[in-house]
Amino acid sequence: MKVITTIEGMRAYREEQQDRSVGFVPTMGYLHEGHMSMVESSTKENDRTVVSIFVNPLQFGPDEDFDNYPRNFERDRKIAESYGADAVFYPSTEEMYPRKRTISLNVIDRTDVLCGPSRPGHFEGVATVIVKLLQIIQPGRMYLGQKDAQQVAVLEGLVADFNIPTEIIPCPTVREEDGLAKSSRNVNLTEQERKEAPFLYKSLKQAEKMAEKGERDPEAIKAEITKMIQENTSGTIDYREVLSYPYLKPATPEDEKWICAVAVYFQHARLIDNIILTISQKGESI
Amino acid sequence: MKVITTIEGMRAYREEQQDRSVGFVPTMGYLHEGHMSMVESSTKENDRTVVSIFVNPLQFGPDEDFDNYPRNFERDRKIAESYGADAVFYPSTEEMYPRKRTISLNVIDRTDVLCGPSRPGHFEGVATVIVKLLQIIQPGRMYLGQKDAQQVAVLEGLVADFNIPTEIIPCPTVREEDGLAKSSRNVNLTEQERKEAPFLYKSLKQAEKMAEKGERDPEAIKAEITKMIQENTSGTIDYREVLSYPYLKPATPEDEKWICAVAVYFQHARLIDNIILTISQKGESI
Repeated sequence: MKVITTIEGMRAYREEQQDRSVGFVPTMGYLHEGHMSMVESSTKENDRTVVSIFVNPLQFGPDEDFDNYPRNFERDRKIAESYGADAVFYPSTEEMYPRKRTISLNVIDRTDVLCGPSRPGHFEGVATVIVKLLQIIQPGRMYLGQKDAQQVAVLEGLVADFNIPTEIIPCPTVREEDGLAKSSRNVNLTEQERKEAPFLYKSLKQAEKMAEKGERDPEAIKAEITKMIQENTSGTIDYREVLSYPYLKPATPEDEKWICAVAVYFQHARLIDNIILTISQKGESI
Repeated sequence: MKVITTIEGMRAYREEQQDRSVGFVPTMGYLHEGHMSMVESSTKENDRTVVSIFVNPLQFGPDEDFDNYPRNFERDRKIAESYGADAVFYPSTEEMYPRKRTISLNVIDRTDVLCGPSRPGHFEGVATVIVKLLQIIQPGRMYLGQKDAQQVAVLEGLVADFNIPTEIIPCPTVREEDGLAKSSRNVNLTEQERKEAPFLYKSLKQAEKMAEKGERDPEAIKAEITKMIQENTSGTIDYREVLSYPYLKPATPEDEKWICAVAVYFQHARLIDNIILTISQKGESI
């Protein structure tokens, strides 16, 4: 497996693969099974798989956990290699952002909900680094975790709006045995918080049960999610939302799919999770 | 020569050229010798040359000349073919902008001067369509007219910021015998205005003479440009500026290069022109 730290080096590697299909898994490192299932999907579907490891300062707010974000490149390198990645792109911040930018991106849709309000500038930062990575790596397919459902929605808009020749492949959320969604941020939980954290998913499964029994009032479902998280964790709810999917508009019984999504602040980590529910059978599923 | 009207068709054409170098000349049609000199440069330096013809609504302001912009595809097709273009990309507005956009671009530098203030949103529109065209056509080189010097500066920022793998090749302004810069908009001049229009370039040549004689006061040069245009044309000056180049900051005697640029409103056409002056010999030219 190649470790590439410069844009020029990455372009040269890509040039060598010219006639081969390339899959791309963008990450901020501290790889876990969620990432690895994406790498596995990519290795099955492409001749070459490139994993990027870059903690992107642009997508962190001033009060967010950029400094606190876990980093361990040697560990990541070994994991990526063991799962069959062909190359790791591991640039420095200076390599990716060498000078003051002259152009910025504005995400004008799908960001007024969920993580948008509490993370101003976050999706702009994500979109910016992804545009750059897609131009440098030029993959045919990019693998994204469905756990970051809003990120998937925003990046699907990006790729469509700018005609970027990369297909987005959303990958199912990988979970611990107790249901907690795998996340690099989980290591920042205290022992007690780690025991409480599975209640994010439990509250979403409860929402799923309610919907299966015919509940179509988003407010009733939201109230139940709130209750379960408040009664079972020491965290502070950032949001719990029930929205149409993938449009992220207010949920109605006519929607084909809903997304139930939660974000909870613990002491040193903000965790998110979501579940997609099939509501109306009218149309084709998406 | 191929005429391609769909994005899918353009991607298929590009795929066929995989191992060949591709040069790209973006235009809004109504081709003139300025465009053709770019096509000629491209055919010399690349295996294949693609010309796009797309009057991009996004770069016109609400009061600007989108409807009035001259169009004649049959004429353009013949000209492009005669100059050796291999393909013309000629999409409809619906093909390029099929739905409400979810992401927009903000040009945050080099737009507070020259055409920026009088054309709010213009460079965002240019940058957006160029990102899209570069993703669809994927050229190694893109040829731009130096007449639109600010456009060149903005797009060089765009390509650098987003790591787009396309080199920008600025091409010298092509002029009529009387010095008027070739422009698709020239056909919208009245007979009388057409006689006056060469004074844009004459005023810039006068500025060049002053600088050659040692004048280093931008205000004195601007005053002379104003005088020449006001005394010899019926147009209204939008701006006449002397700025550092390519940074587009206030000119100082220490700058290596200056750009002298003018924009003049005539009845049905707004014309621009510019000239680059070497001021200080301290550094390497750019």
